[in-house]
Amino acid sequence: MTDRTEAMSPLELYESLMAQGDKVRALKTAKADKTEIDAAVQLLLKLKVDYKQVTGQDYKAGSPPSESSVVHDNGPAADGADDEDTVDPWNVSTTNAKGVDYDKLIVRFGSSKIDKELVDRIEKVAGQKPHRFLRRGIFFSHRDMHQVLDAYEKNKSFYLYTGRGPSSEAMHVGHLIPFIFTKWLQDVFDIPLVIQMTDDEKYLWKDLTLEDCHRFAVENAKDIIACGFDVNKTFIFSDLDYMGSSREFYTNVVKIQKHVTFNQVKGIFGFTDSDCIGKISFPAIQAAPSFSNSFPQIFGGRKDIPCLIPCAIDQDPYFRMTRDVAPRIGYPKPALLHSTFFPALQGAQTKMSASDPNSSIFLTDTPKQIKNKVNKHAFSGGKDTVDEHRKYGGNPDVDVSFMYLTFFLEDDEQLEKIRQDYTSGALLTGELKKILIETLQPMIAEHQERRKQVTDEMVKQFMTPRPLNFKL
Amino acid sequence: MTDRTEAMSPLELYESLMAQGDKVRALKTAKADKTEIDAAVQLLLKLKVDYKQVTGQDYKAGSPPSESSVVHDNGPAADGADDEDTVDPWNVSTTNAKGVDYDKLIVRFGSSKIDKELVDRIEKVAGQKPHRFLRRGIFFSHRDMHQVLDAYEKNKSFYLYTGRGPSSEAMHVGHLIPFIFTKWLQDVFDIPLVIQMTDDEKYLWKDLTLEDCHRFAVENAKDIIACGFDVNKTFIFSDLDYMGSSREFYTNVVKIQKHVTFNQVKGIFGFTDSDCIGKISFPAIQAAPSFSNSFPQIFGGRKDIPCLIPCAIDQDPYFRMTRDVAPRIGYPKPALLHSTFFPALQGAQTKMSASDPNSSIFLTDTPKQIKNKVNKHAFSGGKDTVDEHRKYGGNPDVDVSFMYLTFFLEDDEQLEKIRQDYTSGALLTGELKKILIETLQPMIAEHQERRKQVTDEMVKQFMTPRPLNFKL
Repeated sequence: MTDRTEAMSPLELYESLMAQGDKVRALKTAKADKTEIDAAVQLLLKLKVDYKQVTGQDYKAGSPPSESSVVHDNGPAADGADDEDTVDPWNVSTTNAKGVDYDKLIVRFGSSKIDKELVDRIEKVAGQKPHRFLRRGIFFSHRDMHQVLDAYEKNKSFYLYTGRGPSSEAMHVGHLIPFIFTKWLQDVFDIPLVIQMTDDEKYLWKDLTLEDCHRFAVENAKDIIACGFDVNKTFIFSDLDYMGSSREFYTNVVKIQKHVTFNQVKGIFGFTDSDCIGKISFPAIQAAPSFSNSFPQIFGGRKDIPCLIPCAIDQDPYFRMTRDVAPRIGYPKPALLHSTFFPALQGAQTKMSASDPNSSIFLTDTPKQIKNKVNKHAFSGGKDTVDEHRKYGGNPDVDVSFMYLTFFLEDDEQLEKIRQDYTSGALLTGELKKILIETLQPMIAEHQERRKQVTDEMVKQFMTPRPLNFKL
Repeated sequence: MTDRTEAMSPLELYESLMAQGDKVRALKTAKADKTEIDAAVQLLLKLKVDYKQVTGQDYKAGSPPSESSVVHDNGPAADGADDEDTVDPWNVSTTNAKGVDYDKLIVRFGSSKIDKELVDRIEKVAGQKPHRFLRRGIFFSHRDMHQVLDAYEKNKSFYLYTGRGPSSEAMHVGHLIPFIFTKWLQDVFDIPLVIQMTDDEKYLWKDLTLEDCHRFAVENAKDIIACGFDVNKTFIFSDLDYMGSSREFYTNVVKIQKHVTFNQVKGIFGFTDSDCIGKISFPAIQAAPSFSNSFPQIFGGRKDIPCLIPCAIDQDPYFRMTRDVAPRIGYPKPALLHSTFFPALQGAQTKMSASDPNSSIFLTDTPKQIKNKVNKHAFSGGKDTVDEHRKYGGNPDVDVSFMYLTFFLEDDEQLEKIRQDYTSGALLTGELKKILIETLQPMIAEHQERRKQVTDEMVKQFMTPRPLNFKL
């Protein structure tokens, strides 16, 4: 690869190739000097070689490089190591007590790290102190966030899209992460938001009835509304309801379904021939809200309004696929902000399970339950005895109570002091757990109070397709 | 196999097995005489052996036999003959000038022949002379038609479902066959009818835009309406419109999609890994109208109203799949009436193509075009010279003009006389063609006249989801 092209992404290379092809044709048409034409052809050929090296594909005009074919998805690591983390929409696991190696994941998924420069830029554009999830690397990876900010600075707005798979009535604190962050984004950028409840997905994947999945969608919507979203700027929808009430949404689903093969979803999601055809075609339904004309009642039929998707990194496969399809059906690619996983009380090796009541703090837990769960189940990075702990100190990197505080304790200085004191041994495990308990108890109680205020009428309002109040 | 069970279908065997199992359990519970229990167990075991022989599967309580796994679909014939006809929703071909061997197809698809007994029974139940398509074996095969008639005789009504894939504006006379027959069924049984326009399917399979497919659906609907359907008993819908406007329809689509695997659609339709996920999941959309609760505006949410589907035999794979799924999601299986294919002017070896204007008579053809096409392109079973023809006679079995007359000439005696005269040589090819031309010209002209009367307002009325006027 030449110096000139080595830093280029497959898409940039593709675009250079298109441009160079145009240039060669223009020179020939203009009957330019032979030396000039030859030089242009030389560069064209060189670009083609580089393109093949980077993408593994031959350049073909009209066929942009495929994002999901470039990344290695969830297959084994190139170096043959078998301790690779598993991260896909249905499985997250790692053998590392600190949790998934997110830097490796960025390389494997082909996304970009949210570095200090980007956090500073968000602060500047939003005119607000960055959310603690950004300050602390909880939202750690992105795709095309700079483009969203570029456009926003030129007074071109965007919209937010996030979602939830309603597999039970019970939501735990981890489920709130994307919503807490999305609410912050909605507030600081003053933009519309759509929230997809994938009740159809849960029906397809789980042993549940359609009625239950839809009921869970409505119940979960109440918890989401309790996060404080602005009803004038937020549309929450159940797939079962919205697919059957929006011609435009179904139209986009069919468009996406035409442009994705079984081979592709097999590669991206690991589907097999024994999977039902509902699962196989579902990714198109999660992709469709990324395109603004899926919501004509909100965007008046415009298809060019950029979409930003805050989500946990395990949802990225859906949006890699979406970004592959977008240019082929004439839509902009959605941008993404990826979060790390919220650890289970038992440790950061696995994602929490809504079916194990002791794996996390649920939004319905009483102060007493919170206290007992943290004291009894939160994996500790402390030493076995007080003496040893005082002498050698604890390890906050594997301590789940400390991890939870990084999610929920707003004060940076206080958090840093806790980290230092725990590491030095000045702070005991019991004391650390007490701080977490006293952080969670009022937080959950306030959530429960807000949820109580959410009436059926309000849910109906949020879930009714209607215009939203915003300026684009 | 025993005499007792050899005539049983897999499903009947399955039901006998269920009943016998219940009987054995009842005898044991009642502590019946040992000899009696032993005899019942013996019969149970024997039924299991028979079941395995018939279905190739082990009997499993709660898993009725699979229709699509029993039939051999479109694979090679069991006798290894390679002149097997190809019949699936996208390909129909045969090497036989008389057309597809329909008796073989009945065996291969596992359907039942429409025999004289059934035609007589339809006549008796309907109280009308059977339609010429029944009298002449054009509708030649069925599934469960006797059950539909049994129920109808007990004053339990049913509804009709048929459809069309709108791949272009142009429809030919062959496309009218299912609609002409469906109109007759609607009239004699006085029942509601739903007509699906699969514009989404055509978008997925063809190089067409969504807008074009939908426009073709509306244009084709005009030709369908011109067949004389009663607007008070008929609902015509475009998939693109209805999927996005009926929660109940989408709900059924998802239910079906959950209960069909890629392996199954691969076996039934021959899909491959390179097919788009839209094609793979589409069969559920063609299946859904077979269930009455897909149309709550018509059937008020009832899911138990039997459905009868008149269609060309190439659509049977969709409904074999549907019938497999139905009991697993708690719905009755649809019954079917299958028609033969309408031959191309060039001969009965292939199905007609809407893209070749000379392959058939189009509904837009002028009297002159009809005359020219028949005279120029209709494959003749006559001899090369008049002398030879007078001497040896013609062959009506391969003569396309004669075949067309079997479809469209109402008078049985006249048709039989033409057959005899053509066979004997008394009737020349030119004379036969003249009879066909004089049959088609007024028929097409009248169709065009009726189509002109079809206003946009009428189309809108037919295509609006609404209650229909009927008694169940």
